Amino acid sequence: MNGAESLVRTLVAGGVEVCFANPGTSEMHFVAALDRVDGMRCVLCLFEGGATGAADGYARMADTPASTLLHLGPGLSNGLANLHNARRARSGIVNIVGEHATYHRAYDAPLTSDIEGLARPVSAWLRTGLSASGIAADGAAAIAAARTPPGQVATLILPADTAWEPGNGIVPVPPVPERARADDGAIAAAVAALTSGEPTLLHLGDRAVRDRGREIAARIAQKTGAKLLAMQANARIDRGAGTVPIERLPYPIDLAIGALKPFRRLILVGATRPVGFFAYPGKPSLLAHPDCETITLATPEEDQIEALERLALAVGAIGEKPRIAAGPRPDLPGSGPLEDDAIGRVLGALMPEGAIVCDESLTTGRNFFALTHEAAPHAWLQLSGGSIGVGIPMATGAAVACPDRKVINLQADGSALYTAQSLWTQARERLDVVTLIWSNRAYAILRGELANVGAHNPGPKAIGMLSLDDPAVDWPSLARGFGVEGRRVETLADFIDVFRHALSRRGPFLIEVAL
Amino acid sequence: MNGAESLVRTLVAGGVEVCFANPGTSEMHFVAALDRVDGMRCVLCLFEGGATGAADGYARMADTPASTLLHLGPGLSNGLANLHNARRARSGIVNIVGEHATYHRAYDAPLTSDIEGLARPVSAWLRTGLSASGIAADGAAAIAAARTPPGQVATLILPADTAWEPGNGIVPVPPVPERARADDGAIAAAVAALTSGEPTLLHLGDRAVRDRGREIAARIAQKTGAKLLAMQANARIDRGAGTVPIERLPYPIDLAIGALKPFRRLILVGATRPVGFFAYPGKPSLLAHPDCETITLATPEEDQIEALERLALAVGAIGEKPRIAAGPRPDLPGSGPLEDDAIGRVLGALMPEGAIVCDESLTTGRNFFALTHEAAPHAWLQLSGGSIGVGIPMATGAAVACPDRKVINLQADGSALYTAQSLWTQARERLDVVTLIWSNRAYAILRGELANVGAHNPGPKAIGMLSLDDPAVDWPSLARGFGVEGRRVETLADFIDVFRHALSRRGPFLIEVAL
Repeated sequence: MNGAESLVRTLVAGGVEVCFANPGTSEMHFVAALDRVDGMRCVLCLFEGGATGAADGYARMADTPASTLLHLGPGLSNGLANLHNARRARSGIVNIVGEHATYHRAYDAPLTSDIEGLARPVSAWLRTGLSASGIAADGAAAIAAARTPPGQVATLILPADTAWEPGNGIVPVPPVPERARADDGAIAAAVAALTSGEPTLLHLGDRAVRDRGREIAARIAQKTGAKLLAMQANARIDRGAGTVPIERLPYPIDLAIGALKPFRRLILVGATRPVGFFAYPGKPSLLAHPDCETITLATPEEDQIEALERLALAVGAIGEKPRIAAGPRPDLPGSGPLEDDAIGRVLGALMPEGAIVCDESLTTGRNFFALTHEAAPHAWLQLSGGSIGVGIPMATGAAVACPDRKVINLQADGSALYTAQSLWTQARERLDVVTLIWSNRAYAILRGELANVGAHNPGPKAIGMLSLDDPAVDWPSLARGFGVEGRRVETLADFIDVFRHALSRRGPFLIEVAL
Repeated sequence: MNGAESLVRTLVAGGVEVCFANPGTSEMHFVAALDRVDGMRCVLCLFEGGATGAADGYARMADTPASTLLHLGPGLSNGLANLHNARRARSGIVNIVGEHATYHRAYDAPLTSDIEGLARPVSAWLRTGLSASGIAADGAAAIAAARTPPGQVATLILPADTAWEPGNGIVPVPPVPERARADDGAIAAAVAALTSGEPTLLHLGDRAVRDRGREIAARIAQKTGAKLLAMQANARIDRGAGTVPIERLPYPIDLAIGALKPFRRLILVGATRPVGFFAYPGKPSLLAHPDCETITLATPEEDQIEALERLALAVGAIGEKPRIAAGPRPDLPGSGPLEDDAIGRVLGALMPEGAIVCDESLTTGRNFFALTHEAAPHAWLQLSGGSIGVGIPMATGAAVACPDRKVINLQADGSALYTAQSLWTQARERLDVVTLIWSNRAYAILRGELANVGAHNPGPKAIGMLSLDDPAVDWPSLARGFGVEGRRVETLADFIDVFRHALSRRGPFLIEVAL
């Protein structure tokens, strides 16, 4: 058994059963080992950003890491943007990067680069394999690191000779630390805030927002009069009928400041303190009111559910019965233009039970969340790190993780153009993904941002840099190019018809929604 | 004048007249300044790898740097693979990366990352702007660094407040060092090699291979009996009728070792020592014969032309008249299958004078070079750093640099799928580019590499990882999606007809060549 086979066997034995790959020469022994090892599904991606974004989507839905397989420094580079998003989502990923044989690196061959340097900014754990006999142990350590709460990007660099020289067999995964318990001081501080008489906000992120944590937080809110708010971007929220509805911190800076303005106590539960997505001249970086005191009940690394349970007990909220979304589903809009709110209502009405929504809607989708509180139960995954181009890959990975659930990718057009190649992987793997492209033919978000940063009265060159209408991207053609059926719809009735059709069948389908 | 405007004015005054951009919020003031400053052509790319690859192609043809405009760490990340190629091609690029306002970085907003860490591996020069009053001087220093021979990637990180706060006007570009003169010892060592009676190879790269240097090297070879060989990958060779024909070091390891085997003296002129593109078990990293002595006449940083002139004088070769390609052009193949050699002959026959060939052919194109020595005069640009996905972007940049020359992009299909978005930029800018897609529906190069690295008898999973036929990419549909007309050809006669048509018109056109 060579090093590559010992690594693949260690991955499978350690529960890493999917590899999103775009391999090259230095990874050929890993690829060859796939035929000698049962249990590893290797999913080919045409571009590394597709592989890393899929690994992120997979981890969010499977709650266990997939691996990637990337080709040297440039392959890693192409995957970095979605690793950045994965890092912000706290997704566990065993990120495997091929490298020249150890003895070959000194010769500065054309593909040689500083892989560790490139990997460091996105990696919580980083190691270069030194020998074939040690590579399985390196892989086992990488799995443990990827699984370390709340989930981490663990990068293992795999020199070619550590793959082809003799390996040492399977190595078990070392113990993974459990989430730390929030300390009693944090509970006491939260109790003090909740009983202070001051307007108080429970700000939820990570596991606290997903479903169970949110439900306990809602009991606390009901008992104490506190309000609930999710972070602006969340890795995953399980929501819809039967769950506690929650709004998110708005993206636009003025709305975000306005949402936080009433509160004088802010309790963070799995959330980080609210900061401006960007800096804007004359506006603060910290969004909470200057007189607001911030308390951390539990960090993303800590056990937020357990902390919420202790807090609920402390304030006597265990027996509360918070409002849950009880349906009925929203009605389909009967007529009117094909615009954002109508689309949101269609989503709320037609989304099937168990749907996984991968949301990279940006401007178009700002109200979708509010319009789908009463939809059938579903998971909602967001762009977590602000690096656009995650939607199609993330939907791909979520569909691999959950083959029996319908994936609906709500996708801004400009962002889709970063990583549209992942449509091909959806076709190849027969994944059940409906992609809805919001075709406004612009970087619409930036039109607002020009004014927000004080660049008023933009001229034609500036406007041109934000426009995608010359030429207009023909999305059904693009989808067909990648082997995916697609349709363009220009009316609300057509959208409803075609979306229903797409939901009624299995396999990838793309709808370009003209806005 | 704010900092952004002072920077744009400094760029234009410093001769940087094109910006390949994919901007975001933090770059909006740079974008807004474009309307207040004449002379900067801003070319929108849908993906940052398209921007950096275009800047590489531009620099290779214009011999002066363009700038990029990228959005924070993730935007830079997406551009890194083609910056790696640019670094290997020694292309000068003013690589501008937006960043959060200086005071905002501490808050770890979602898009915050270690931009310097990400940029360092590809950047010969790297600076983060600290103030709006200093940003123009930073830009001027970046231009000087990008222009420093032989050409460098200079990364300037532009915090948003250095763009929007008041700037200080135009700053002139500091003096750029000239190429250093090769020392006399190097000339003497080369003379000794050439007069040693041992078989000697002049190995040419960088400027030495382009045209004038190659012509002087050919005189030296003719006088001394030495042979000429270009590097395996070259940033640019100006070749065809009227120039000295030269072959390149082959890519496959055994052929490369075989090509160097006869030589006992190797004189490097703008070339680096030949090393294996990858490591292969049981094969050496250094490709020259173990008994071969290597002499450096001039490094890529030094003045190779001047060194060759001194060497020619020293060996009495000035008056030699080396063989030049005198035509006639190759005949069109009359009939036969649509395969590699026939395609090479069609290229040789039909390529128009002044064509710029952007070659990312990989396996399909291994004989194209040999079949086009007698073609009309043209420039030939190669994948320099081994990071696939440069072809379509590089062709885009070359077409921006040389609007009156026909660009012909010889493009492997697997590699094209990394950065096909650049077709859209070709349509938007009405660039005169013919893209020829070698549609073998596989990572064909890796099929050979499996065996080369000793992974024999690959199973179906391994073969599957190298196959792109399920689904087959429909290239004309993909091109149409991006606003570019395309056709698929399946016979030699059709290829000739459609290629002629594409050459006879202006504007982008794509031909999927079925192999």
